[in-house]
Amino acid sequence: MKNRAIGVFDSGVGGLTVFKEIEKLLPGENIKYFGDTARVPYGNKSKSTIIKFSTENMLFLLKEKVKMVVVACNTSSSLALDYLKDIFKIPIIGVIEAGVNKALTVSSNRRIGVIGTKSTIDSKSYQDLIKSKDKKIVVFGQSCPLFVHLVEEGFLNGSLVNESISLYLNRFIKEKVDTVILGCTHYPLLKKPISCYLKNVKIVDSAKEVAIQTKEVLINNDLLNLKNIRGKKVFYVSDESKSFGDLAELFLKRSIKTVKL
Amino acid sequence: MKNRAIGVFDSGVGGLTVFKEIEKLLPGENIKYFGDTARVPYGNKSKSTIIKFSTENMLFLLKEKVKMVVVACNTSSSLALDYLKDIFKIPIIGVIEAGVNKALTVSSNRRIGVIGTKSTIDSKSYQDLIKSKDKKIVVFGQSCPLFVHLVEEGFLNGSLVNESISLYLNRFIKEKVDTVILGCTHYPLLKKPISCYLKNVKIVDSAKEVAIQTKEVLINNDLLNLKNIRGKKVFYVSDESKSFGDLAELFLKRSIKTVKL
Repeated sequence: MKNRAIGVFDSGVGGLTVFKEIEKLLPGENIKYFGDTARVPYGNKSKSTIIKFSTENMLFLLKEKVKMVVVACNTSSSLALDYLKDIFKIPIIGVIEAGVNKALTVSSNRRIGVIGTKSTIDSKSYQDLIKSKDKKIVVFGQSCPLFVHLVEEGFLNGSLVNESISLYLNRFIKEKVDTVILGCTHYPLLKKPISCYLKNVKIVDSAKEVAIQTKEVLINNDLLNLKNIRGKKVFYVSDESKSFGDLAELFLKRSIKTVKL
Repeated sequence: MKNRAIGVFDSGVGGLTVFKEIEKLLPGENIKYFGDTARVPYGNKSKSTIIKFSTENMLFLLKEKVKMVVVACNTSSSLALDYLKDIFKIPIIGVIEAGVNKALTVSSNRRIGVIGTKSTIDSKSYQDLIKSKDKKIVVFGQSCPLFVHLVEEGFLNGSLVNESISLYLNRFIKEKVDTVILGCTHYPLLKKPISCYLKNVKIVDSAKEVAIQTKEVLINNDLLNLKNIRGKKVFYVSDESKSFGDLAELFLKRSIKTVKL
């Protein structure tokens, strides 16, 4: 059982930011990553559709005999995680809680901004979780739907990026937030220009925290793989588009071999 | 048979530009429109995936007993139309040929630009068809992947739009094209800022030509509905997202009722 892989899924390539941190923290673990590239993006789709897609992704990873699943997609984590946890037996974690915990630790003025896809922000998953942990915190949710597309088209800096950032994040300056959670796995690739625009604001990228939480879950369930030095990594995609490979290089800074479903 | 509807499908909402022109030219026809909003966009997916999705869309419309199908999506038309025509009996038309014929009529200097999604431009469907009709014409294909997202996020003008236009279309000015085909059903919504940037260039939007071709196909197959004054219009979507309705208003300038699959 310990030798089984950790399953990680995302709507596409964004979850690789999470994959990368898990790989770094737990080099001995085997990991199976699934990117639903045929149906990407999830960010502007309805709750019922996201639950349907997420369930199908889970079933695929279960067929691949994984020992736990990391939902490395903020939209799925926001809208489908509770449902998945309800119906499936194996340990499942999302990316919301890790980001929230980190933000609560670093914010001094208790004014926190959250950015994500339309579905993530509209679901209020971040806002509600923060409020449940500390009622006094003021949370500002802002959807930034163009960010995913900018990243996927390779725009990581330049005037188009800066223009979009100022358009979406201007409000955070006015509202004097001191911490912003990157509530979408694509956004860490825009961290630099965002930091540049939001001077002196702490930027929380949940990927590292998710890796720590993954390790905790494995320890608590006695599933940690202690025998391996270097685990095997396999990447599955639902569309054979070669663009996954190109984007993966952008995220992981190395080339990978993908397997089509 | 004549009373059956015309089927129109698109990856999402963009095909409504075509729907609108068919409705205008053939007001008596019943029309069933299907937008595959659960799997939108098609523009950066592989040929095999687009053929799979397009076939499923056809099967849905056939179950709805349509008398002909208009593939109102440039990506599907580029990558799946030949396949669909091969395997299905009813008349099927795409959007490529109509745009090409129009461009050949209006270009004087025989230097034509084509813009579209990555999959459309990479497929060379426009470029090859133009070349097959007139070898001497010089064609410049340019994919503009951000345009769809700008339109879907409601950016139809302003600095972000102008920045993107200059980024993608700068080359057409250098190459002195005198005609540009809008090879994606979303692009007509950016026609104004594109015309502004490409001064004195003829902009070809194939929607009107597709409507004319639809009428011809109906006449040739003795399928024209002559009894109706005003046809019934039904809209189906594969995702229940309310954003389809909002976007539809943008495209049609009226509100519609959608039916989820």
